Formats: sequence, structure tokens, C-alpha cells
Amino acid sequence: MTIYTAPVNDMKFVLENLVGLEELAGLDGYEEVSSDLVDAVLEEAGKVAGGVLAPLNVSGDGQGAKLVDGTVQVADGWKEAYKSVAEGGWIGLACNPEYGGQGLPKAVGAAVDEMWHASNMAFALCPLLSQGASEALENNASDELKAIFLEKLITGEWTGTMNLTEPQAGSDLAALRSKAVPQGDGTYRISGQKIFITYGDHEMTDNIVHLVLARTPDAPAGVKGISLFVVPKFLVNEDGSLGERNDVRCVSLEHKLGIHASPTCVMSFGDNDGAIGYVVGEENRGLEYMFVMMNNARFGVGLQGVAMAERAYQQALEYAKDRVQGKTLLSRENKAPIINHPDVRRMLMTMKAYAEATRAMALVAGSAFDKAHKSKDAAVRKHNNDLLEFYTPIVKGWSTEIGQEMTSIGVQVHGGMGFIEETGAAQHYRDSRITTIYEGTTGIQANDLVFRKTLRNGGEVARSVLAEIKGLDDELAKQEGDVFASIRSALTEGVASAEQATDWLIANSNQPAKAAAGAYAYLRLMGTVCGGWQMARAALAAKAKLDVGDGDSKFFDGKIKTAHFYATQIMPVAEAFKKTMTGGAESILALADDQF
Amino acid sequence: MTIYTAPVNDMKFVLENLVGLEELAGLDGYEEVSSDLVDAVLEEAGKVAGGVLAPLNVSGDGQGAKLVDGTVQVADGWKEAYKSVAEGGWIGLACNPEYGGQGLPKAVGAAVDEMWHASNMAFALCPLLSQGASEALENNASDELKAIFLEKLITGEWTGTMNLTEPQAGSDLAALRSKAVPQGDGTYRISGQKIFITYGDHEMTDNIVHLVLARTPDAPAGVKGISLFVVPKFLVNEDGSLGERNDVRCVSLEHKLGIHASPTCVMSFGDNDGAIGYVVGEENRGLEYMFVMMNNARFGVGLQGVAMAERAYQQALEYAKDRVQGKTLLSRENKAPIINHPDVRRMLMTMKAYAEATRAMALVAGSAFDKAHKSKDAAVRKHNNDLLEFYTPIVKGWSTEIGQEMTSIGVQVHGGMGFIEETGAAQHYRDSRITTIYEGTTGIQANDLVFRKTLRNGGEVARSVLAEIKGLDDELAKQEGDVFASIRSALTEGVASAEQATDWLIANSNQPAKAAAGAYAYLRLMGTVCGGWQMARAALAAKAKLDVGDGDSKFFDGKIKTAHFYATQIMPVAEAFKKTMTGGAESILALADDQF
Repeated sequence: MTIYTAPVNDMKFVLENLVGLEELAGLDGYEEVSSDLVDAVLEEAGKVAGGVLAPLNVSGDGQGAKLVDGTVQVADGWKEAYKSVAEGGWIGLACNPEYGGQGLPKAVGAAVDEMWHASNMAFALCPLLSQGASEALENNASDELKAIFLEKLITGEWTGTMNLTEPQAGSDLAALRSKAVPQGDGTYRISGQKIFITYGDHEMTDNIVHLVLARTPDAPAGVKGISLFVVPKFLVNEDGSLGERNDVRCVSLEHKLGIHASPTCVMSFGDNDGAIGYVVGEENRGLEYMFVMMNNARFGVGLQGVAMAERAYQQALEYAKDRVQGKTLLSRENKAPIINHPDVRRMLMTMKAYAEATRAMALVAGSAFDKAHKSKDAAVRKHNNDLLEFYTPIVKGWSTEIGQEMTSIGVQVHGGMGFIEETGAAQHYRDSRITTIYEGTTGIQANDLVFRKTLRNGGEVARSVLAEIKGLDDELAKQEGDVFASIRSALTEGVASAEQATDWLIANSNQPAKAAAGAYAYLRLMGTVCGGWQMARAALAAKAKLDVGDGDSKFFDGKIKTAHFYATQIMPVAEAFKKTMTGGAESILALADDQF
Repeated sequence: MTIYTAPVNDMKFVLENLVGLEELAGLDGYEEVSSDLVDAVLEEAGKVAGGVLAPLNVSGDGQGAKLVDGTVQVADGWKEAYKSVAEGGWIGLACNPEYGGQGLPKAVGAAVDEMWHASNMAFALCPLLSQGASEALENNASDELKAIFLEKLITGEWTGTMNLTEPQAGSDLAALRSKAVPQGDGTYRISGQKIFITYGDHEMTDNIVHLVLARTPDAPAGVKGISLFVVPKFLVNEDGSLGERNDVRCVSLEHKLGIHASPTCVMSFGDNDGAIGYVVGEENRGLEYMFVMMNNARFGVGLQGVAMAERAYQQALEYAKDRVQGKTLLSRENKAPIINHPDVRRMLMTMKAYAEATRAMALVAGSAFDKAHKSKDAAVRKHNNDLLEFYTPIVKGWSTEIGQEMTSIGVQVHGGMGFIEETGAAQHYRDSRITTIYEGTTGIQANDLVFRKTLRNGGEVARSVLAEIKGLDDELAKQEGDVFASIRSALTEGVASAEQATDWLIANSNQPAKAAAGAYAYLRLMGTVCGGWQMARAALAAKAKLDVGDGDSKFFDGKIKTAHFYATQIMPVAEAFKKTMTGGAESILALADDQF
């Protein structure tokens, strides 16, 4: 059994030094944000994550979710844990106070969400989807729908789901077939089957709010004919009390590699008279609205990547410090813990550096969301919205690829014991495997980054990010010693690789297949460089603290050394990814189908 | 349910063009080796793998091995499958005909072993260990022991196991505590507990031959006091019939992430009077003898890496060709199979290229074994033994890391369906996770490569391998066109990186912790370059076939294009690994324990 301790110190460090609490406090509605407030929130959330959710992680995996008599039964302790998370106001931490939210910035909410995912990813998927559903409703639903559903979602009294995928459609939303027939009274009758619906059913709350994509009878073909509907599990009476059971049910659960405790449902809508649904916003604009939820969920899944890296790191670190075995090169003892093997240290450093880099990047992206929504300055809002759009596929795609790789390293640190389920290392490996797939595979994120977020604006946003990174050079140049020189040169090389890769994309924009062949490399390259940027910023901030003798010098020294590790051990892949793009992406497409 | 088709054409290509059947036929005892013979063996083995073993892979995973009333029950069909593999003479394919083997070269046996692992890794572990046990006995046991046990192992009438690990010792064999007390009659009484014993018990055969490391009462401490014993499950009477049950039993099975059908046993020796054992060779030389078995098993596990890459590739390819979903960039159809997405093609090419590269390297290493043992020329034997020792940690460490990564890509190609156990992609992901751990973790392989296989000979063997690779340059330079130019320059850069890394190791040989910190990178770098070497050789051989219009031009053209892909998409990591070694390996060791 493993312990999870929320990395509160690292989160505070990132929020204070890389995000900037003062800047957040200058945004509309975040005036109360302060170091003390953030400390209190993180400490308290850490207690819930470590004390309530983490202890259920292994038992939930063993027990799984079950479909019994048409109803999903969650694992033991789940309902009570959900109640304590909802009642603590944690689900709506970064939501609008007008609808029962706590009104904290996304950057702070993201740090807390990481804790839920790290402590118990299968559990945390439920709040993740409620958050996405509430954002989609807040942005696009009528006041009437908001009045009925929004506060219930934000307070956690009810939970939300996201019904996109159909068996024949997969990632191709244009092929959706679910139907929505208007009844003349403002309601619709929804029918169709949806698959891979996370927490599509459960009895932790009295009601479930399904957001469902479907087509009205006269809708145009393709993605322009998709509308978004609210379909509650139980209809809601005018007085707000629950009415009849709606015509929607979970017909089966998937048998999955991981996240066993998260019910992945096949949902059937309208087996009888049709499920009653309410349209969100206007007909045929469903995909646009759902993208709000999808982007929210993509960011949330990116945090799962961070969380899995952190959790796997903590678990491996504990094992490496405890497991005594023979002679090592880093200890004079005859029998020393395996952390004294240089290769074990390499693995731990890799996990630590990546957890910190992906976290910093995710929280910085979270603050772009805050500025995009709450800045008083329209130009700042616009710029940050561009940044947020650029960062989202990186946070989702890069962090989850990394998170997954780190759980594999976590298994490796345990040696043979890592392969035995009892240690828990294997569960992280299994659980994390879904993160690069759901809410858009890494390939989809990479295409999004290349086509929508880079080529569509002629590379302008990418270049503005790279220019900002280069802006760090002066300050790095001022630092003395080899360590900062190494951090500086690695960042310079990384940025140069990213610039060349961006130029290559622009030059190949008229060959979309070739650009797409290089997309994965571009995503990994950009993630690596953005991570290195945040690590370099962290090193500078830590150095400044050390220079004035402010705070925990061991922690700050560790920050600089971890940034150095990132620079020398991780950054070199940036150039390799650039070379794969610029040095022969066409070789990816050279084989005929029958030569495979 | 997935189909496995043995890659007979690729194996033949490698054996004929990269290993060289004529060279094999020039070795002592391999005079009969011919293209026809190899074809027949591969075709026949492919039928058994695809027809007998592959169909049991998924059911075996679901059913697992069970301990019932003190006896291990294997999955349904296992016993019959084992019988057909043993009776086909497959277990002793590359073993000494004097003891019932088929006397084929290791290189050919390795290709066949890959098929067993690819079709059903959990099953194939049983023959793998019998092969290792028989090699250890053949090399070191007395004629008396050989007479009793060797032929039974080679023919598969009995199976073998390898009992090294003890709970307190893990990879640290110096800490072994199992005891062996001489009885004055030439036998010993063995007692102690061993863990992670693959196929430590089962009833597929009448007897099991345990090879066990233990200490005699007066043995020196550490690894110099370890002896090797044969401890049969049933004692063998003088007439060869089975006698009493020996005092050894399986007391529990591990609950593992994968290879569920392979029983991983906790074995207890001597709970009553002590298990009767027979010493192999001389006392206190057990580790040396066991290293024969261990190297055999390491090579075999390396083949599992190749096999998992191949199996995951086949499964993903089938899915990518079948799964129709929306528009793609590589097809004009409105709905096309996902193989027409450039990023899916990137993933498939990665799997194909790595499967071919790891296979070629493993079979070339197998032929080094053959030449080391069977050449008529002592200098050739010596040189090939050096090569074999150098290649073994690469084949084990690199191929398994790759195999594992390829099974993850295999899941990814399936999208959401990859996470659902029914497709089978997840099983490969789970099964393969053990391969970088057992028979020496990748860290142990890396240290072996750096310290024993490189630094101990002052880098001489590494440099001779790199010189041989450079010898290919003339022929590459003669080829026309961009594709060969690209293959040539990638190989040149890869070799340069490997040379610089080797120089760095030599320069840091007096700082073992630093050298060890760079060991993993060195292993990956060497594997990448060796793989690129074989791919370049394959491209040249294919070009020669095309030039004379000999054979399947699509296949040969595919070989060249796959080598090109390897050169542009995979080889760039070689330089990145070199940089991590030479540009700051000390950063791996910079943190104090309490800064983690």
C-alpha cells in the first residue's frame, strides 16, 4: 500500500513564482487571491486527497465498478468520499460563485485537481466531467437550463457526463447518428447509443446530467448538423424536485486495462419513448459548445498526466529509499537502499524533473485561461486566449505521454516487485494508459497543435511563445557557474530546434499529409521546450530566493539541480524530434499499404 | 481475437542475407544447414506458433495459472500444446544431437524461439528455461548428471527451472542464504526459499529439474560461496524411472500484471528433511555455471522483446487496416481505414522498423554464438565470443525496452479499443512489462555493457564493432539517390555518437558512479546504432536483389524504405543519448537523498 502526499510545496512554488499570484489577484474577481489563501486551499485539499481518496485507490481497483440490475455500483467508500469532496466545495473550486462555485482561479483549481487525480484517478474522473459539463452549460445554455442544472453540477449535488462517442464513429464526430426529435413543446426526444461514457451511471448522487450530441431530423450532414442536449437521468419538476426516470440507461460496462473503479458505460438513450432532452444554445452548434467541455476535459486529462508522473515518482521514491539490497556505487555500506544505484537515481530524477516540468507548464496554461477570461485588458485576454489554445494540446498530449512513461519507470524502479500487483506500481501503469487516448488521442492533439493552433495563424502564436522563451536568455546569461550555463545553452538549443521545426511546418503547409506525419514530433518537441522553459524559470526564481536567503535553501537548491538535470538529460530529445521532422518525414509515408 | 502469422519471410531474409547461411554451414556440425532446410523449419514452426500456441494466448491470460492443493494447474490446452511442441523436437532445436537435440544453429533456433514468444509469451517461458538449464548442465555437469537429466530436458520430456532469487536478495546474489548440506554420499540436502520461479511447478511433464543456487556450510561469503545444484521434483531411480517426491514445493503464486498463464512460484526447499540435490561441477563455482544459463535466458528474453514488438505490430496493423473511420489525409474516400492517417502510419512504421531491427540484431548475435562455439578457427571463436558477450546485454536490454514501447504504441493505434481488454492489445502491453525486469533489469544490462563488456577491455570490443559498422560506408557510398544518402549519413552520425560515448566512458572509467549514471544511455545508444547497422545492411542486400530482379520486389523495396524510416525517424535519438552522457551525467547524481 502506498501513501500519497500532495506536493504542496512544489505547487506553491509554481503558483507564486511561475504563475504569479499578484498577477492573478489583478484579474477581475480574483482580488482575494493571496499567498495565504492559496496555502490554505492547497493544504486542505492535500489532506482530503491523501486522507480520503488515496486510501481507496487500490481497493477500488480490485473491486471495480459493477452493473447490477441495470444500475452501476461503485466501489466501497466511493459514495462517502464523493460526498466529502462535494461538500468541501472542491468540485466547483474554480467555478463561478454566482452558481455556487468558489471562484478561485483555474491555475489554483488545476493544482487541486492534480491532487485528486494523483490520489485516485478513477475517482477523480467523475468531478472532472462535472466541471466540463458545467463550463459548457455556463457558456452556452439558456438561463432557464442554467437555473435548473448549473448550480447542482458545480456544488456536486449532481454529476455530469459527456456523451460523444458512438460505436461506428470513434474520433470521427461527423459520423454521429444519435437522433433528437423536437416535440413542439421545446423538448426533444433523444435516441441512440453512446459508448465509453465515464460515470454514465452510478448512485453517488440523486441525479446525473448527461450532455449528449445528437442530430435533429433536418440537420445537415457532418459536424455542422450536430446539436448539444441536456438529458437528465431523472426529469426535474418545476419546483426543482426530481420527477420521472428518463429513458436513458447503462446497458453494459467495459472490461478495461485500468481505472477499474471508474464505470465506462455503454449508454442507451430512448429504448422506449425516447429520452427527454433540452437543447443547449442553438441547434447545429453542438460541436462548438461541446468543444468548451472538451477543452476543459483535455486540460483536466493533461493534469492526470502530471498526476500520474507525481504519484509514480512518490511510490518509486519510497521503494528506492526502503529497499535495501547489496552494494551500490553511491554508498560505502555493504547493504544500502537501491536509491544509491546511479541508474535508479537516473530514473527517479527523470520522474521528478518531468513531474515538475509538466506541472509548471499546466499551471502556467491554467493562468492563461484565467487571464483570457478575467483580464481587464482586451488585448491581454486575446493574447492569453491564443496562448491557451496553443498550450491545451501540449498540456493534454505531452503531459499524458510523459505521465505514462513515468509510470513505466515507476514499475522499473521496483524491479520484480513492480510486476506484482500488490505493490500498486502496476496500477498506475495500467490506469495511466488511457490518458493518451481519451479526450482526443495524442495524434489528435498533435494535429490540433499543428493545423489549428500553428498553421492556421501562420505560426504567429508559436513564434510568440518561442520569443517569450528567448526573452529569458538575458537573465540566464547573468548567472554565474556551469549549472546555469548548461541550463542556458540547453534552452537556446531547444528553442532553435522549435523554431526550425515551426519553419519546416510553415514550409510544408501545402502538404498536409507530410505536416501531419511530423505532428507528433512537433508536439513532443514543443512540450519538451516548454517544460525546459518552466524549469529554467524555476531555477532563476530559486536562485533569487537563495541569493536573499529566503526560505528552504535545500528545496531551492534542489530546484536548480533538477532544472540542470532537465537541461542535460531531457532537453537533448528536442533536437532529435526536430531532426525527425526536417530530415525525412516523407519516409513515414513511403510504404504502400500492401508493403506493411 | 487476434491472429499471429510468423514473419517467416523477414526471418529468412535476415538469416540468408544478414547472418549468412553459407557461413553457418561452414561451422562444425552445421554442414547440413541450407536455405531449404531453414525454410522448412521456419514454415513448420510458424504453423505450430500460429495454429497451436497463438489461439491459447488470450484464454490463458484470462484463466491464469492456479495453485490447487499444493500443485500448480496451468490453463486449459496448455498441456496438449506443450506436448506438441516437445514432440515436434522444438525445444531442443538448437541443442546437441548427442543428447536428443536437433543440432541447428542458435541463429535459426532464435528465429523459431521468437515465434513461440510472439504467439504466446506466457507459454514460451517454459521451454526458454528448459533450454537455459540444459545449456548449463551440458557445459558444467558431470557425465552422470548429464546422463540422467540432459536428454530429458532437451527433448522436453521434463522441464527446467532457474532458482536464483530469494526474498531478501533480489538482484543481489551475494546475499543468497539457501543452504546445501553434504550428506557424505555425494548428495546434498537443500533448504531455503526462492521467489519469482517461473514454471516452478506444473503437471505438464512428469518431472521438473530445478537448478538451484545455494551455499554449503563452509562456503565463503558473497558470490564466491555459491554452488549450483540439480534438485529434481521427483527423484530418479537408477533405472531411470521416477522415485520419491523430493522435498520441494510451490507454496504460492504471484498475482501479476501480465503473463498470467505463466506460474510465478514461491518455492520452498527442504521444509521437511531437506530436498535432495546434486552438485553441478565444483562447489563454489555455482554463479559461474549459472551465468551460462543466465546468458542463455537473457538472450531468450531479448527475443521476447523482438516478439512483443512483432506481435503488437501485427495486431495494430490488422486493426488499422480494418477500422474505418471518417476522412483521412491519405485517402480520397470519405470513410477510410485509419491506416490512412499519417500519425497512425508513423506508429505502424515505428513498430515495423523496430521489430525488424531488433530481430536482425538478435539473429546476428545468435550467429556470433554459433561461431564462438563451432568455428574451426580459434581466433574466430575468440572474436565471436567477445562479440556475443558485447551483444548479449544489448539484445536483452535494448530489445526489451523497445518491445515494451511498441506494445504501448500498439494500444495507441487501437484508440479507445486498445484500453478494452477484449481486443488483446492490452495483454501484450501487460505481458511485455516484465521483459525489462527479469533475467537482469535494463539497469543491470547497462552496467554489464559498460563495465564488464566495455571498460574491462578498454573499449576494444566496442571499437571493433563500430569499426565493422564503419566498414559498411564504402558500399553505402556507392548507392545512388537520396534514400541511401540518408541511410548513410544517419549511420555515420550514429557511429560518431557511439564513438564519442565510448571515449567518454573510457575517460570516466575512474569514476564508476558517473559511468554508471551514463550506462542506460550507452545501452540505448549502442542498441540504436546496432539496429541501424542491420537496417542499412538489409537495405543493401535488398537493393542487390532488386538490381538482379531476384524475388519479391515489393518486399525488397519495403526493406529499403523501412531502413530509410529507421535512419530518419529513429537514428536521431542516438545523438540525444550521447549528449545526455557527455553533457552532464553528473547532474543525475547531484541531489542529496533528502532533496528528492
